[in-house]
Amino acid sequence: MASGQKQGRSPELRKDWVTNRWVVFSPARAKRPSDFKSKSPASTTSATTADQIQDGCPFCLGHEHLCAPEIFRVPTSSDPDWKIRVIQNLYPALDRTLNDPSAVAPNPNLNGVEVLGGFGFHDVVIETPFHSLQLSDLSSQEISQVLLAYKNRILQLAAHSSIHYVQVFKNHGASAGASLSHSHSQIIGLPVVPPNVSARVDSMKQFFNETGKCSVCEIQVKELLIDESTHFISVVPFAATFPFEIWIIPRDHSSHFHQLDEAKAVDLGGLLKLMLRKMASQLNNPPFNFMIHTSPLRVTDPQLPYIHWFLQIIPQLTIVAGFEMATGCYINPVFPEDAAKVLREVPNPE
Amino acid sequence: MASGQKQGRSPELRKDWVTNRWVVFSPARAKRPSDFKSKSPASTTSATTADQIQDGCPFCLGHEHLCAPEIFRVPTSSDPDWKIRVIQNLYPALDRTLNDPSAVAPNPNLNGVEVLGGFGFHDVVIETPFHSLQLSDLSSQEISQVLLAYKNRILQLAAHSSIHYVQVFKNHGASAGASLSHSHSQIIGLPVVPPNVSARVDSMKQFFNETGKCSVCEIQVKELLIDESTHFISVVPFAATFPFEIWIIPRDHSSHFHQLDEAKAVDLGGLLKLMLRKMASQLNNPPFNFMIHTSPLRVTDPQLPYIHWFLQIIPQLTIVAGFEMATGCYINPVFPEDAAKVLREVPNPE
Repeated sequence: MASGQKQGRSPELRKDWVTNRWVVFSPARAKRPSDFKSKSPASTTSATTADQIQDGCPFCLGHEHLCAPEIFRVPTSSDPDWKIRVIQNLYPALDRTLNDPSAVAPNPNLNGVEVLGGFGFHDVVIETPFHSLQLSDLSSQEISQVLLAYKNRILQLAAHSSIHYVQVFKNHGASAGASLSHSHSQIIGLPVVPPNVSARVDSMKQFFNETGKCSVCEIQVKELLIDESTHFISVVPFAATFPFEIWIIPRDHSSHFHQLDEAKAVDLGGLLKLMLRKMASQLNNPPFNFMIHTSPLRVTDPQLPYIHWFLQIIPQLTIVAGFEMATGCYINPVFPEDAAKVLREVPNPE
Repeated sequence: MASGQKQGRSPELRKDWVTNRWVVFSPARAKRPSDFKSKSPASTTSATTADQIQDGCPFCLGHEHLCAPEIFRVPTSSDPDWKIRVIQNLYPALDRTLNDPSAVAPNPNLNGVEVLGGFGFHDVVIETPFHSLQLSDLSSQEISQVLLAYKNRILQLAAHSSIHYVQVFKNHGASAGASLSHSHSQIIGLPVVPPNVSARVDSMKQFFNETGKCSVCEIQVKELLIDESTHFISVVPFAATFPFEIWIIPRDHSSHFHQLDEAKAVDLGGLLKLMLRKMASQLNNPPFNFMIHTSPLRVTDPQLPYIHWFLQIIPQLTIVAGFEMATGCYINPVFPEDAAKVLREVPNPE
């Protein structure tokens, strides 16, 4: 079947129960799904031609003195030949040294607003010592070590009673927000459960109350499946906010990303690598973001049956503009079934 | 006072009661507020040097045949020397011809999702017949005619009983989502009240229930004021989501933008022009979006006391990346008081 087969469809609004978001699918605005490419690919250097160590890059092996303090390294804290480093962000969004993190101080001069001290943690995970490698260049085993570094840092942050949510995310490419090209991801520990997380948990709860089931366990993959591994599936979600958005979902119900064990980490590493490579191959190496959507740290047992973690990958192919910012409604020109078919059929680039 | 005076502040989380959003103010990540500039300014041609009519631009005078059907023009529907045209979008996000707009059809194959036909209106307002002019090049009187064209189209859309919200917005510059450089704005009539609008109305209602007052009327301007006119004020909101974000707010309580009369339209046109010119002058002609945040069409009388419309201008200076997408929390490196001071002190560029 030609990938343009579904041209002529009418626009459709779809609501996703996981994100509680309406998305407008608007084929009139689309090229053929298989013609979608990034117009401004992330400029990454080839692993075979570029220098492994770049002058002035603080994340390269041997340049550790240019960085903010290290939290831990892999394999061990004394190994000069590290594979992964978790460090403080030199320009943190939140301040780990502030006191009294839970104090809400209404400003007497300003009605209708609340102010909270900016306590929190903002860390960086340097995924490789070498400037020339991207995350998807690493082996499944090496990627699993990055995922386990996330897990171990989350467990450390969870020990702070005032931290309520940990957001793990990766920005790849300058236009997706990466200020340094050396492959890295970020971890922010927050003193509040952020609004999108509350909305997601509330929406999952509503689905559970109405059906007795977990909204993520119940996702019917069929036409939406891209690939699968022993412990995970990858899909384009039914109401994808962005074209070629990908979710990697644990098959078995699991609320917290930090429940990931070593075997599952290797399995997830392999599927994540495959998705990143398919995406780069099909979409012209687009800048992208990925985010781990996990459970708030301090949930109660009755909440666990409806909270299911997943990893979301968003290639940057369209622009979020006035309409989306104003309404919170997103316009997606590619039907998820079409995006899934295109990605499913990309040959494994390895 | 030097604009860098407030360096050394701690990060702060602020919540805005109007948008119900938490924003992280993070001075550690900032340059001096007065040093903020767009790195990729919108490429606009100078009114004095460029051609008034550009080959192939469908929005230029005389190229009307390249456009989708016209809805109305200003001054009159028969005038070949039009000043403003309101037309259908050639690539509409929603389809005005669909039937049964309110039918919600749960897809039996996909649990946890809802599907709605993509009924709605998507129009374009061509703000000037000339390619070389931007909105801020027009006179206050001419801008008022654009604002009144918005109003008149909203009133037409409001006559459709299945349209529940009308979003007016402008994308300026390719990286802010403008696919054509000829100055234009867009109007989308939606069969639902979109989520950000519901959230805003709910938040305003909560404030009203707690205080008996309108959250927008109660905004204490003081350090946040940029400028003011007879009927409007312009401020940087206390919990601005983006650096140098500007709100233009009617002084007198008013729920619906389409209550704007001619005298207020000229007054608003003048203040909007001044804000756009100050922003371009101070921030290196950044791409920007503006959005009119008005009331849902079908509200009841008891809702009117707490819904107050305003116009929001967002210059594109930072990147929305993984953290913001995942959490709905935004990181703003410029404290609103500092942004307001910088914009207040920009000389009127005329």
